[in-house]
Amino acid sequence: MPRLDFWYDFGSTYSYPAVMRIEEEAAKRGVSVTWRPLLLGPIFQKFGLDTSPFRANPVKGAYMWRDLERLCLKHGLPFRQPPEFPQNGLLAARIALILSDAERPAFTRAVFLYEFGEGGVISEDDAIKAVMEKLGYPVEETVARAQMPENKLKLRQATEHAAALHIFGAPTFFTEDGEMFWGHDRMEDALDWAVRL
Amino acid sequence: MPRLDFWYDFGSTYSYPAVMRIEEEAAKRGVSVTWRPLLLGPIFQKFGLDTSPFRANPVKGAYMWRDLERLCLKHGLPFRQPPEFPQNGLLAARIALILSDAERPAFTRAVFLYEFGEGGVISEDDAIKAVMEKLGYPVEETVARAQMPENKLKLRQATEHAAALHIFGAPTFFTEDGEMFWGHDRMEDALDWAVRL
Repeated sequence: MPRLDFWYDFGSTYSYPAVMRIEEEAAKRGVSVTWRPLLLGPIFQKFGLDTSPFRANPVKGAYMWRDLERLCLKHGLPFRQPPEFPQNGLLAARIALILSDAERPAFTRAVFLYEFGEGGVISEDDAIKAVMEKLGYPVEETVARAQMPENKLKLRQATEHAAALHIFGAPTFFTEDGEMFWGHDRMEDALDWAVRL
Repeated sequence: MPRLDFWYDFGSTYSYPAVMRIEEEAAKRGVSVTWRPLLLGPIFQKFGLDTSPFRANPVKGAYMWRDLERLCLKHGLPFRQPPEFPQNGLLAARIALILSDAERPAFTRAVFLYEFGEGGVISEDDAIKAVMEKLGYPVEETVARAQMPENKLKLRQATEHAAALHIFGAPTFFTEDGEMFWGHDRMEDALDWAVRL
């Protein structure tokens, strides 16, 4: 079965439509997707940026929100702009990493739906805990495991791995032959490439 | 008949597939396209960039070339990476502006094909003159007209107009209701939007 690595960041706007749509598009093509949370912050810092490029250039940032709104309309996804951007997705990423490969997609979708579908603030622990509770996870126990040094290190290593792969934004997709595809706009191309291998 | 404004820069890589594909996609939908050359250099300067964002971030730049190569493959366009980037498209833009609306598309396509299809250098006057000669224009006379103060001013004003519209990159498309679409990836969406108005 063809495989695709799907790298995303919980604060990344264009990761939202990718998170919501990738399973269906992958299923159509018989591609197996590995969901890989990362932190864009340290990657942006490597490029000398102390925030999202959409904050660094407010004209581009304003366009991005309208573009995302139109994309959501096109794909039938709920959209509400959150009051903060970019949001700190550290706890969400740690939880996603401690969950199994089978559990990660549903948790990830629920967080993104809250963030960009309802305009919620995910940087607050209580918001992430509420999402987990809805999904039926033992909240305090899972958060405690997510905050253990081994898991924190695992997320740092995932982000270092992403940087070593020359990832510079999210979402980013990698096929098994090492082709990199950046952006929700390339998701279908990446899946098609995976199938043709 | 629905209308679309198509803003492009002769040095812009993703303007290449847009320049090559827009007439066919517009014809399919019955949309009339106005071709509007601009200079991205002064726009980037407004954002504190002294070169293309793809030069400012070489990791992103390296990805862009591979992405463009794949896009050209997908759309059946010839591709060869030019030895310089970004190239100075000043003379090309001035010529494009002095030509009529009917002549502009063919001249623009010929310059872009030379630049990104053959890997040619367009910053040299002789290259632009060779393109013009092939298309049957009176070369020296047209260049002289293009270099007149009125036409230079017209290009500066076009670029200022683009900046006032909050254009921050190319290609950029505007529908008659003022919706902005950025990038070759949004060309079809922009044309569809123009039709729905």
